[in-house]
Amino acid sequence: MALPIENLEIPMTTIASAKTSVLRPAFARWMHSANDITRMFLQAAADPDVINLAGGLPEADTFPVAELADVARRSITEHPGEVLGYGPIEGLPELRDSIARRFSSRALVLSRANILITTSGLQGLDLIGKVLLDEGGVIAGQFPTYLGALDAWRPRSPSFRHLLLNEPGLDPCAALAGAQFAYTVPNFSNPTGQLVGLAMRRALVEAAHRTGTWLIEDDPYGSLYYDGAPLSRMIELSAQKDSGRPYAGPVVYMGTLSKEIAPGLRIGWTIAAPEMIEALTRAKQGSDMCTSGVTQRIALAAIDGGLIESIHPSIIATYRERRDALCDAMSARLADSFDWGVPVGGMFVWAVAKDPAFDTDRLLRHALAERLCFAPSSAFDPSGANRRAIRLNFTFNSPQRLAEGVQRLATAVERYRLEGG
Amino acid sequence: MALPIENLEIPMTTIASAKTSVLRPAFARWMHSANDITRMFLQAAADPDVINLAGGLPEADTFPVAELADVARRSITEHPGEVLGYGPIEGLPELRDSIARRFSSRALVLSRANILITTSGLQGLDLIGKVLLDEGGVIAGQFPTYLGALDAWRPRSPSFRHLLLNEPGLDPCAALAGAQFAYTVPNFSNPTGQLVGLAMRRALVEAAHRTGTWLIEDDPYGSLYYDGAPLSRMIELSAQKDSGRPYAGPVVYMGTLSKEIAPGLRIGWTIAAPEMIEALTRAKQGSDMCTSGVTQRIALAAIDGGLIESIHPSIIATYRERRDALCDAMSARLADSFDWGVPVGGMFVWAVAKDPAFDTDRLLRHALAERLCFAPSSAFDPSGANRRAIRLNFTFNSPQRLAEGVQRLATAVERYRLEGG
Repeated sequence: MALPIENLEIPMTTIASAKTSVLRPAFARWMHSANDITRMFLQAAADPDVINLAGGLPEADTFPVAELADVARRSITEHPGEVLGYGPIEGLPELRDSIARRFSSRALVLSRANILITTSGLQGLDLIGKVLLDEGGVIAGQFPTYLGALDAWRPRSPSFRHLLLNEPGLDPCAALAGAQFAYTVPNFSNPTGQLVGLAMRRALVEAAHRTGTWLIEDDPYGSLYYDGAPLSRMIELSAQKDSGRPYAGPVVYMGTLSKEIAPGLRIGWTIAAPEMIEALTRAKQGSDMCTSGVTQRIALAAIDGGLIESIHPSIIATYRERRDALCDAMSARLADSFDWGVPVGGMFVWAVAKDPAFDTDRLLRHALAERLCFAPSSAFDPSGANRRAIRLNFTFNSPQRLAEGVQRLATAVERYRLEGG
Repeated sequence: MALPIENLEIPMTTIASAKTSVLRPAFARWMHSANDITRMFLQAAADPDVINLAGGLPEADTFPVAELADVARRSITEHPGEVLGYGPIEGLPELRDSIARRFSSRALVLSRANILITTSGLQGLDLIGKVLLDEGGVIAGQFPTYLGALDAWRPRSPSFRHLLLNEPGLDPCAALAGAQFAYTVPNFSNPTGQLVGLAMRRALVEAAHRTGTWLIEDDPYGSLYYDGAPLSRMIELSAQKDSGRPYAGPVVYMGTLSKEIAPGLRIGWTIAAPEMIEALTRAKQGSDMCTSGVTQRIALAAIDGGLIESIHPSIIATYRERRDALCDAMSARLADSFDWGVPVGGMFVWAVAKDPAFDTDRLLRHALAERLCFAPSSAFDPSGANRRAIRLNFTFNSPQRLAEGVQRLATAVERYRLEGG
């Protein structure tokens, strides 16, 4: 049964709902532009009646539960002082070394000094904002832009310059010059699922070296290639320009265990020039002092024990099947109203309405009434103006439920049309 | 053997040491006022030759290792989807309920809506800064002020108004009026170890109710009373003014498991009016999305299983003996040069030099040469100007090592005198 539309709130780019009492000091200005959509995703995921295609949630059946339980017990028993006490702000030395080894190559020479462990990948973005942004500082952000990154930077009141990597006339040097940093998700961009090609990767790296602008390579989905071989990372391409020397270039690479093992560990890492790692460490000192030794030791044992590699094939098989199920259902039911590409990897399909005047914020009201949740394009636009597209996640639901979700979405589109929006 | 003084760096209130290459964008302005001292504490703790009286580190022998290892294994095995996936931004509902129950009283009516789980107590301070501070926003901070709080707020470039709770003429309403928030550590203030008395607690609460200013009650040491009964919390006193209704007052209470169980869990909580919890949740969304389900479940099982109560007597006995050992050694060796009070609880003794011109930043150089580390008073002053006092921790070292540390300190004082500072 559908819920009545008038009872549904769409807290898209709305204001803090808090009723500030007359006497209380005002909240900081950025709070008035905050969004509730991430919270809505996480809440929707908890309601079994709602099919949640909104979040970037992994399938819980892929979590290596027994292995992690055993690793957790052993981590505490074998390293009690280290995991239960305060640790270095930069992270456990052995975990930093392990990440350095994992990402090193002939060209990319990494040591512990290049690695910061972060409490989730998102913390890396928060810290980048802290160290690089004064009010009004310019971010050249791949557009549309990951919602979580917008959330992380909003408190520093930056200016956004859209980095449109598909525009034929893009001049990367002009796009990067004068920005504090450029933000990109080259592997299966959130939200569009777009794979940034090798030529554009090279052009961005070249522009970062020329302009000096820091180039953030946010890579949560780098292990989720369903077709074809992974493209070279930008930090690798950057190192090739400077071959054999310890890495000191402009690329700031961010990884996470959230998609390779489990988000609940909240373990991420930033790989960058030592001067950037030092700056981020100074910022992390005032954010949470250090990441939990418990979760760091679990991460270290999981990585060094080969757990990522051992579960990878089953993750890929599961997600590839689901991508295909979602796209097949979309072809059957949404081809009249939306255009999309089949993503080569990642977690999302980005569908753009054929009608340029279509408003996916309004479509979401109808979808929620049908007990379906998706992410509307306004959430990925700092101005909230982009309302023509939707982001659909395919990793969290079974193929059957994905098909049912698309059915509900098609019903919502029909209602939207019948009711004139 | 003492290290040569010229090889020692004292990175007190110094600048980011990073050599920013000519081409790179400048780091944010606040970075130029950052401090390295917390990192220095953590590093000193790792060098077995240095006696570290600087940090606020607990004794690792108090950690309930076997219990936590077992709880960790069971948490993952029994709640895999919950602990390994993303969770609600606000924290696990059961953990929020458990904290609400733990702090509820006849007057203080708390529900889940009053509780935010934070990734460490420090994250609570970071989030308070995010939601309340625009550049130049005023903080009325108990002075001298916890270093970590200064680190957390520095990126928002606030103004500091000193809250001198020992000044006889203090007018609490005047002190709080117009400030975004007041910051206090009523139980054994960091750094001074001072216990804020009941009359002053009442006066601060009254002033917060009258002026509307948020009153932060940071309480990491509230369980560490070595003599006498605990005084009422300010949030409890605030609730008594409004008895029986769900808490919606101006006190923002912050707790942590770091001193009651183990810092490595990085689990803290904020208790406040629902409007403040909503605002902090919005800020946390852009900081780390959610706290690790693994560490939250461990915390929940530990709290509900009575682990805090079961290890509390041995923590108190250990720390009381160490406090006495430190103070006895100080009486024997430092009474000519410093004044101090014996703290009723907490982790620190604050000693003020008898000579008003004494410079404890300079004393630290001599102390490090003797392989002793302490925290100089400049670290707890937003301006860095206060150089007359030192903070000595007594929880991390054995009584024997504390006595040896005081011996080294006395030698450093002697050298300081001989060499004219």
